[in-house]
Amino acid sequence: MSLTVGVIGGGQLARMMVPPALELGLGIRVLAENAGESAGIAVTQLGDYRNVDDVLRFAEGADVITFDHEHVPQSVLRALVDAGVVVRPGPDALVFAQDKLRMRARLTELGLPVPDWAAVASVDELDAFLAEHGGRAIVKTPRGGYDGKGVRVVSAGAEVADWLERGEPLLAEELVEFRRELSQMLARRPSGEIALWPVVESIQRDGVCVEVIAPAPGASTKLIQVAAEIATTIAAELDVTGAFAVELFETTDDRLLVNELAMRPHNSGHWSIDGSATSQFEQHLRAVLDLPLGPTTTRDAWSVMVNVLGGTTADRYPAAFADQPDVKYHFYGKEPRPGRKVGHATAGGDDLDDVVFRARAAAAFFED
Amino acid sequence: MSLTVGVIGGGQLARMMVPPALELGLGIRVLAENAGESAGIAVTQLGDYRNVDDVLRFAEGADVITFDHEHVPQSVLRALVDAGVVVRPGPDALVFAQDKLRMRARLTELGLPVPDWAAVASVDELDAFLAEHGGRAIVKTPRGGYDGKGVRVVSAGAEVADWLERGEPLLAEELVEFRRELSQMLARRPSGEIALWPVVESIQRDGVCVEVIAPAPGASTKLIQVAAEIATTIAAELDVTGAFAVELFETTDDRLLVNELAMRPHNSGHWSIDGSATSQFEQHLRAVLDLPLGPTTTRDAWSVMVNVLGGTTADRYPAAFADQPDVKYHFYGKEPRPGRKVGHATAGGDDLDDVVFRARAAAAFFED
Repeated sequence: MSLTVGVIGGGQLARMMVPPALELGLGIRVLAENAGESAGIAVTQLGDYRNVDDVLRFAEGADVITFDHEHVPQSVLRALVDAGVVVRPGPDALVFAQDKLRMRARLTELGLPVPDWAAVASVDELDAFLAEHGGRAIVKTPRGGYDGKGVRVVSAGAEVADWLERGEPLLAEELVEFRRELSQMLARRPSGEIALWPVVESIQRDGVCVEVIAPAPGASTKLIQVAAEIATTIAAELDVTGAFAVELFETTDDRLLVNELAMRPHNSGHWSIDGSATSQFEQHLRAVLDLPLGPTTTRDAWSVMVNVLGGTTADRYPAAFADQPDVKYHFYGKEPRPGRKVGHATAGGDDLDDVVFRARAAAAFFED
Repeated sequence: MSLTVGVIGGGQLARMMVPPALELGLGIRVLAENAGESAGIAVTQLGDYRNVDDVLRFAEGADVITFDHEHVPQSVLRALVDAGVVVRPGPDALVFAQDKLRMRARLTELGLPVPDWAAVASVDELDAFLAEHGGRAIVKTPRGGYDGKGVRVVSAGAEVADWLERGEPLLAEELVEFRRELSQMLARRPSGEIALWPVVESIQRDGVCVEVIAPAPGASTKLIQVAAEIATTIAAELDVTGAFAVELFETTDDRLLVNELAMRPHNSGHWSIDGSATSQFEQHLRAVLDLPLGPTTTRDAWSVMVNVLGGTTADRYPAAFADQPDVKYHFYGKEPRPGRKVGHATAGGDDLDDVVFRARAAAAFFED
């Protein structure tokens, strides 16, 4: 008897599930849209994740279906469940990662700390929200945004008139004054077992994660406890299975507010490949198969992950590997494009300044 | 620009090259004899490694050709080199891992410590060797042996009459009185850079490696130095490239004698996946591509690897993972058969007795 995991989506998250799948002796197969995607080595079918027939065919014989991304439509997810396919995380959980308005409403209902928010369906409604919140706000499209896409900072309702024309309400949020962004990652099994990694600091530039420091420097016992409670509560209440990231604001007045949810391995957990006894990718596979979770003990006092954005060419390997021998390099097999996440570099050690320096120096070899 | 490695042979060594190839953004492709072998996920061609046309076709477009096993005939290796293909390790080195008589002759020429040996072509010659060596000896077929196959302990020449009938000389070796078996692994680049892992103790049962302790317990500074010198000398003199294992006897009178050579990743280095900053599989890829080698610092005071022989079925994962959560499990996707290496388990920590116990307990869940 062996176990097979089917992953919908052929990006770098699916790619990074392949090594632990091989180590654990699991079968892994990937449904990708196009040939040549990051997870190409495990692709067994090209198809459209929005097409029920494609996805049902892909699911045949897999013990569980999971995801590289959160864009599979609810109708497709429901069809899988109706056909008896095990889907983790399931549609009832995933909807809260797919729809930011439903997420905000549910977290508010659960009494969890979130920025002030409102669903706005017109320029007037948004202007009213702005008037109550100092004249500026964040506006998000509830669906389909990532890496800063589908997000605008506005000071007048008219600035999102184009989005409102689509006829669907938008999410307006107060502009939170935050000291920094954090991420609390965990994995949860259907049986309820949860394993948390340390809360980390996530540094963004233009809405894209560029650097992660694990654990978050200077985090108080209280902050660590609150972050863990928030993520644990959401995971249990929303019945999340698999790897799960809660992105948080640490406000200037020392509160934690939930920013975004990601129900899959997440950029803020890439450090765990080299820095944790169990990586988020191995843990995700264990979790969706309802196997006992691995320990999340850290290997180093500090782990720092720096994304490689833009270009990566192997002719830079000799210089980079020689200059930063202790850094672990990870590349995603993607064609270089300006600003595109094509890999990451992780350093670990006892001295945070040194670790940050080494990770940045390593990544810099591959930037344009 | 990206780099592609072609691996001849589809076994577990090729399989375990896949994770570091993915992490480093390398292309990896495998020539396997049959569908469904361990490295199946990377197989791009089914074919015969003894067939020049198959192998030449496979090598097209690869930056380097390397190996899962040492059985590719010299004629095929020479044809690759003649066609301009980069082959690492090259045929001039590999011959000494393929032919134990040539290996013994070359090491003797280099003045390296080996057991007393002779090439014997007849029952009479073997009987003469036996008479000079206390009436017992090890006899090996020079080619094709592994895991105890092609090896016999004899006390009369007639006991290998069947092998002698083939018309090729055999290797006769004194029966060494040894305290234990050790393995010194290193990796070497074509440019000459060498990185050594610590010398390890390798515990065999019926000629099959069952357990490896890294580093070798109680190894003196002198032993560590001599093991390193022997392996470094052989690697340089034989122009070995890639991962390289020198299996050694530690004799009861405190000498180190070279037993076998393996010019590829080796069972005695599997612990490095979890226990070293750079695994033997990542290092092999770096070495054959002539990229700077990674550090071989250990992650734990002790790493213990126990092979899983026989059966592995995923229905045992829940009990094993729960009982030994800190152990890293590795399975090779092979059909279980009695005595077959189907995976391994590695534990690490500060207390050797505890580490041994945990690794053995983990592996025992999968034994028949």
